[in-house]
Amino acid sequence: MASSSPVTIGLITDFGTRDPYVAAMKAVIAARCEARILDLTHEIPAFDVFEAAVFLQSITDYLEPGRFVVVVVVDPGVGTERRILLMERRAQLFLAPDNGVLSLILDSSCRLFSLEREDLFLPAGSNTFHGRDRFAPVAAALASGLAIERVGAPTTQIVRLDYTAPQVRDGQLRGRVISVDRFGNIITDIPAAGLELARLTVMVGNKKISAAARTYEEGRKAGGPFLIAGSRGTIEISIAGGNAAEQLQIKRLDPVEVREQS
Amino acid sequence: MASSSPVTIGLITDFGTRDPYVAAMKAVIAARCEARILDLTHEIPAFDVFEAAVFLQSITDYLEPGRFVVVVVVDPGVGTERRILLMERRAQLFLAPDNGVLSLILDSSCRLFSLEREDLFLPAGSNTFHGRDRFAPVAAALASGLAIERVGAPTTQIVRLDYTAPQVRDGQLRGRVISVDRFGNIITDIPAAGLELARLTVMVGNKKISAAARTYEEGRKAGGPFLIAGSRGTIEISIAGGNAAEQLQIKRLDPVEVREQS
Amino acid sequence: MASSSPVTIGLITDFGTRDPYVAAMKAVIAARCEARILDLTHEIPAFDVFEAAVFLQSITDYLEPGRFVVVVVVDPGVGTERRILLMERRAQLFLAPDNGVLSLILDSSCRLFSLEREDLFLPAGSNTFHGRDRFAPVAAALASGLAIERVGAPTTQIVRLDYTAPQVRDGQLRGRVISVDRFGNIITDIPAAGLELARLTVMVGNKKISAAARTYEEGRKAGGPFLIAGSRGTIEISIAGGNAAEQLQIKRLDPVEVREQS
Repeated sequence: MASSSPVTIGLITDFGTRDPYVAAMKAVIAARCEARILDLTHEIPAFDVFEAAVFLQSITDYLEPGRFVVVVVVDPGVGTERRILLMERRAQLFLAPDNGVLSLILDSSCRLFSLEREDLFLPAGSNTFHGRDRFAPVAAALASGLAIERVGAPTTQIVRLDYTAPQVRDGQLRGRVISVDRFGNIITDIPAAGLELARLTVMVGNKKISAAARTYEEGRKAGGPFLIAGSRGTIEISIAGGNAAEQLQIKRLDPVEVREQS
Repeated sequence: MASSSPVTIGLITDFGTRDPYVAAMKAVIAARCEARILDLTHEIPAFDVFEAAVFLQSITDYLEPGRFVVVVVVDPGVGTERRILLMERRAQLFLAPDNGVLSLILDSSCRLFSLEREDLFLPAGSNTFHGRDRFAPVAAALASGLAIERVGAPTTQIVRLDYTAPQVRDGQLRGRVISVDRFGNIITDIPAAGLELARLTVMVGNKKISAAARTYEEGRKAGGPFLIAGSRGTIEISIAGGNAAEQLQIKRLDPVEVREQS
Repeated sequence: MASSSPVTIGLITDFGTRDPYVAAMKAVIAARCEARILDLTHEIPAFDVFEAAVFLQSITDYLEPGRFVVVVVVDPGVGTERRILLMERRAQLFLAPDNGVLSLILDSSCRLFSLEREDLFLPAGSNTFHGRDRFAPVAAALASGLAIERVGAPTTQIVRLDYTAPQVRDGQLRGRVISVDRFGNIITDIPAAGLELARLTVMVGNKKISAAARTYEEGRKAGGPFLIAGSRGTIEISIAGGNAAEQLQIKRLDPVEVREQS
């Protein structure tokens, strides 16, 4: 982070915005650096590490070519022996508890460090709010040019989520619902690239979906649920003007099967 | 946008903040420019173009004399043939789908362009998320100095909302409720300037309101609904310590009639 | 505010984010200065001055050593004779209505001024939205270098909240619940420093709590409510994986008594 272009610090938490937790983190950061500070979300459901990991995965590639420090504080183990990790991924930095939240964006190019230098933390910090007392001052230090090797020891160990990518079994492509958005769109982890959606049948829950559309508007003609290539690059299931997840009674991690129409 | 003062990019969407959509837009913008990025709102009700248009109208004059790019993504037609417009209005720029959302702030001084240069968009973009794939990179390019004439062809055509400004009919001033705020204040489109509220009777729904106040505090004495000159410059109807819209059962677009007290 | 480091303007309001009020304030500020603009919260319950005061108190020390203008608009008296105050506290500035919201962070080092220069306000402003018409332009002027003595007359008078700090009575330390956060943590005003929580019994409502933990994770072993030194530096009462305030039926301002275990 030695170049002269500005650094952006993005925040992902489960704190909501009515309590002073996000404000305290911003106060600490802003008091210590000139970085641009962006709210990415504070509405991760409380302690929901998986949701935060999926959220992070869906934005990470869009951070390039910028200079970012992304701070993820979804941290049910705060104050315990769980480590705080700094991950360098291409030119971007990620600070997060070592609870699996970084594991979906981990690849062989990443470098990992374990935060160990207490002099980088706020003095007399708490056991209950490392977002303010540890993540925030370290993010500010990194934004101000601290070399990543200086935060602590390099490490290769990292907690991974109990999640496996989609795979072919019994001749069928099988994956999962990984998120349901506020519009009720059902987001799967099945990559849409190379698939011709109009020739597929997707089983999710006990429902079979065969209609497909190129846009939400076009999906109106389906008169019910339809497949669409979503903005994450994976297959989504939508209902025009309706809430697909509610109507189909689908929830996160439900299995998804993809078949060619016969 | 050639001067050296900083550019601010303001975001108006119906995305909410729990999903990664706003975060992805911010990532794309921040990775490409140094602009100050501001959340204006992400709580427009889903697909509610009229609400977004009224929101935009109520802040537009306050953007002066700054250098702004306001990005409005309330876009039910995403991925269809609907155009994306760039509007220059005085010194400020507005990027929005051509669905009526810009029509309430359109005046004869405005210049319009239709976004057509695909090389300004993200490569391999989606059909479902132009906020990230088209609006965000173009906003960043404009903030970085791209001349507005470079985004695409000039145009004079624009979709307009089905809305008419207040008018006098049958000897009475008639308008509409254009918004209800979180406090329950009923916001009309009747300009308050030049009217002496204490001498008026306002009919809204089947209710007749004759009390008037200069401040919310003064309105307490009314013991019920009262008229007040609101911050948009129009007549509002409030109940001190209560929710006027709920108590009077008023909703957006209900007709409003103004009479002189006899 | 004459130095060259950047100024941050932080916003605390009860406006929510679905209406255009916060956006209008940001528009006015951004059009007039280059400051970094941060949302601290817009989710203070409507007109809840006490909640805003406690919020402010819990972040104020973390603003140091930065250059901040904190703007607090929780202002039920807007448009009346109530004053708007500028408080300088150490190197930070606070703009707020004189309704008690500043009183919890007032100390003998603070300097106070009453905003009186109408030429600093927006022309033709409203009686209902001083956040936009008065607070925002004055904040921008201060961020741009306006000397604090220039906003109006010095004053020593300030409205105070009806609140007394914890005290010892009848041989017991007595305080109050000052906040309940979104996780249901019960936050008291009893300082935890110097107390050995494991040797205390805390009475709150009609409940007696004797378990204590150092971290939330450790609190799981309690199998019920436990005492913990919270991030404000005061005693909190939590339930691991549960909502302590709901389960114990505790609300803000309920009395709290601390006893040594016998």
